[in-house]
Amino acid sequence: MSDTPGRAAKTAVNPPAHTTPPARFSHGLRKGNLLQVAGQVGFLPTGPGRPPVPAGPTLREQTAQTLANVGAVLAEGGAGWEDVVMIRVYLTDTAHFAEFNALYDAHLAECLADGSAPPARTTVYVGLPAGLLVEIDALAVLD
Amino acid sequence: MSDTPGRAAKTAVNPPAHTTPPARFSHGLRKGNLLQVAGQVGFLPTGPGRPPVPAGPTLREQTAQTLANVGAVLAEGGAGWEDVVMIRVYLTDTAHFAEFNALYDAHLAECLADGSAPPARTTVYVGLPAGLLVEIDALAVLD
Amino acid sequence: MSDTPGRAAKTAVNPPAHTTPPARFSHGLRKGNLLQVAGQVGFLPTGPGRPPVPAGPTLREQTAQTLANVGAVLAEGGAGWEDVVMIRVYLTDTAHFAEFNALYDAHLAECLADGSAPPARTTVYVGLPAGLLVEIDALAVLD
Repeated sequence: MSDTPGRAAKTAVNPPAHTTPPARFSHGLRKGNLLQVAGQVGFLPTGPGRPPVPAGPTLREQTAQTLANVGAVLAEGGAGWEDVVMIRVYLTDTAHFAEFNALYDAHLAECLADGSAPPARTTVYVGLPAGLLVEIDALAVLD
Repeated sequence: MSDTPGRAAKTAVNPPAHTTPPARFSHGLRKGNLLQVAGQVGFLPTGPGRPPVPAGPTLREQTAQTLANVGAVLAEGGAGWEDVVMIRVYLTDTAHFAEFNALYDAHLAECLADGSAPPARTTVYVGLPAGLLVEIDALAVLD
Repeated sequence: MSDTPGRAAKTAVNPPAHTTPPARFSHGLRKGNLLQVAGQVGFLPTGPGRPPVPAGPTLREQTAQTLANVGAVLAEGGAGWEDVVMIRVYLTDTAHFAEFNALYDAHLAECLADGSAPPARTTVYVGLPAGLLVEIDALAVLD
């Protein structure tokens, strides 16, 4: 955390059970009232120095874990799903769209149980490292 | 709209003639002074419960409709093109770059007729659902 | 720069040695306390009206120049790497991930020598125009 007088506080957000990032980046970065969540994938909770292990080979398993990982960064950064203004979804196969949406909708229905408006979203189809089917990042505006 | 006392107002922005989103997301989400426009594609104006229909098969038709759809979300959210700080363009074919840019430039020249600085932009080439050639999202900062 | 009374100042940020954008967009756009850096690629410093020339064919050369170009937009906009909350990395080949990360880490170690928290990051694999291996954009929050 960089909190020099006269500067807006900047805080790295790295949930303790998250994998160590594979490069010099933070899983979340909060500055001012913005919290940016880095691209999350379906890695299981782990500990420092342990290799990342995906939740499972299926879209269902990876989506559930990816959404949980996004939620963990939000929570660690003092935010919730109701603060999220944008979700970026990266899938690897257009054939996954319907199944992904069903999982996504169920998750958000639970996380926005107060009826809060869901965030905006963009979904595109890209390449990801071998074995990964979905990646998600998020931008939140805190109160 | 979630407008609990002590919280920044959050407003879902869904123009009435827009297609119903295929998942639990808002076409636009405004919180504080940020308005995030979700990924827009070239779907024609429609009504609730009607299936989405692309403007046409060509890049020209889809680009015009996609830009109009972005503009409709901006307007519904109380913003204009002059408030946009970032445009993300997703094309499916590098061969479309020159034609897309000509259409984009003409549109922005018209929308920023006051000589306002154009937004930043990133353009990448991805996969999109069958039949779609272009997707665009936008981030606006309101006054 | 649009600086009408009652409106938040908006400033286009185009470093003098940057290539002219291939379309109507700004290399950087600052409005309020946000500075959005457009997608940068590895074009060498140039002058108005001169055609863009990539730094070299290798990932190493293009990454170094791309990061320098991001840094130039940040500096021209009154920001530094320590203000960046999000970096988006677009690579064309998953085989480039490890080498890119080594170059990225070294660059950020130098640019964040004060120990400031690194920004969040998302990396995906997309298509880019022929000859280009990497594109990077950035969102900064100024003090």
